Amino acid sequence: MTFAATILTLYPEMFPGPLGTSLAGRALGEGRWSCSPVQIRDFATDKHKSVDDTPAGGGAGMVLRADVVASAIDSVADGRPVLAMTPRGKPLTQERVRELAQGPGVTILCGRFEGFDERLFEAREIEEVSIGDYILSGGEMGALVLLDACIRLLPGVMGAASSGDDESFETGLLEYPHYTRPQIWEGRTIPQVLRSGDHAKIAAWRKRRAEIDTRSRRPDLWERHEGVRVQSPSGAQRHEDET
Amino acid sequence: MTFAATILTLYPEMFPGPLGTSLAGRALGEGRWSCSPVQIRDFATDKHKSVDDTPAGGGAGMVLRADVVASAIDSVADGRPVLAMTPRGKPLTQERVRELAQGPGVTILCGRFEGFDERLFEAREIEEVSIGDYILSGGEMGALVLLDACIRLLPGVMGAASSGDDESFETGLLEYPHYTRPQIWEGRTIPQVLRSGDHAKIAAWRKRRAEIDTRSRRPDLWERHEGVRVQSPSGAQRHEDET
Repeated sequence: MTFAATILTLYPEMFPGPLGTSLAGRALGEGRWSCSPVQIRDFATDKHKSVDDTPAGGGAGMVLRADVVASAIDSVADGRPVLAMTPRGKPLTQERVRELAQGPGVTILCGRFEGFDERLFEAREIEEVSIGDYILSGGEMGALVLLDACIRLLPGVMGAASSGDDESFETGLLEYPHYTRPQIWEGRTIPQVLRSGDHAKIAAWRKRRAEIDTRSRRPDLWERHEGVRVQSPSGAQRHEDET
Repeated sequence: MTFAATILTLYPEMFPGPLGTSLAGRALGEGRWSCSPVQIRDFATDKHKSVDDTPAGGGAGMVLRADVVASAIDSVADGRPVLAMTPRGKPLTQERVRELAQGPGVTILCGRFEGFDERLFEAREIEEVSIGDYILSGGEMGALVLLDACIRLLPGVMGAASSGDDESFETGLLEYPHYTRPQIWEGRTIPQVLRSGDHAKIAAWRKRRAEIDTRSRRPDLWERHEGVRVQSPSGAQRHEDET
């Protein structure tokens, strides 16, 4: 099945862009996903093809019109989730990425300027998503990130050798650190345990390092991880047995 | 002054990519920033031009070699901050974006596969940065996001009309919702206060909406915001007077 990505944007020329190279580009060529950028401006109804207007109540910048954007959304509506990339949205998580990647695809709405007329979100079913707590020049970069995260999870895109189950966030923790040859580099050696050949000891070391690094680098993640364990001790136990 | 971006990557063809269009593209053309992708593979020393090897201790995927990557970094070292895009990094914030945008530029190291040999981070001064809690196919998409966030803040890139001071995160809160013409759309009207012409009432409404939306959508941000106010009541008071 092809994962269908439709992107509503004022800059259709940005797609597939970087997603046309490397892993995602190969997957696009193989038909594992499709990329259909749609120009929002084509849905403007006045002779100047306006898509935006000044903010009600005053202030800097321009606001994307609800009527024009809604027409664009309605033109591609087919039951796939509609996501709008906006800093006011729900922070994107690996869990949500995984859900989306298992579905038929996404329609992604990219804002520019000061964003969308808020009535759009009352009148249409749109999931507001943020890729992080910083401001971008538009939603296009967020759409590229979201699609990249989804595409690598599509069947056949990553080799079986790198299923990604160990990656950061998949277990609720940061991933443990990696090492490779040379054995000694600038006087620094690879940790002894990783050269021991003792698989149980290596697994234990990696688990401990993932925990230590998460606790020191991301106390917020660690707290959530510990919270989940406390709230569902049987589930956490089962998880631990599997490791 | 030109903001100099050097990107160390296995996919130099991805740059400037989407940053060659729109706001960032115009700024690139005007010389407000420069974009120099560097192929990491050029620093490989064996005849196969290898940049990676299997993980010490076993496991899926490949790890980028410390020696090759360090040579690439050393070749461009000039005092600019060196950032590595990795899910183990510190979450990117608008505050850090603003600091970087005020500096001479950045060198950005993009990982692929399972990431970098950890000794790299012990041996070189590298800031590990994450753009969010999800997994991408490589650091390139993160580099594009980081650069986009910086570039829009460079002098002369955004018009004076949209300084961005009101944006989400700049005040520690999400931005208030926007509305624009038409006055009535699908039976929905623009909130009365925004049509009142009363600037004080409009400012108060926007502030309240920013607070309400932050509290309901992002309790984590709200908590931090309230924490800051409690910790420095005089500063918070001053901030409130200015609004």
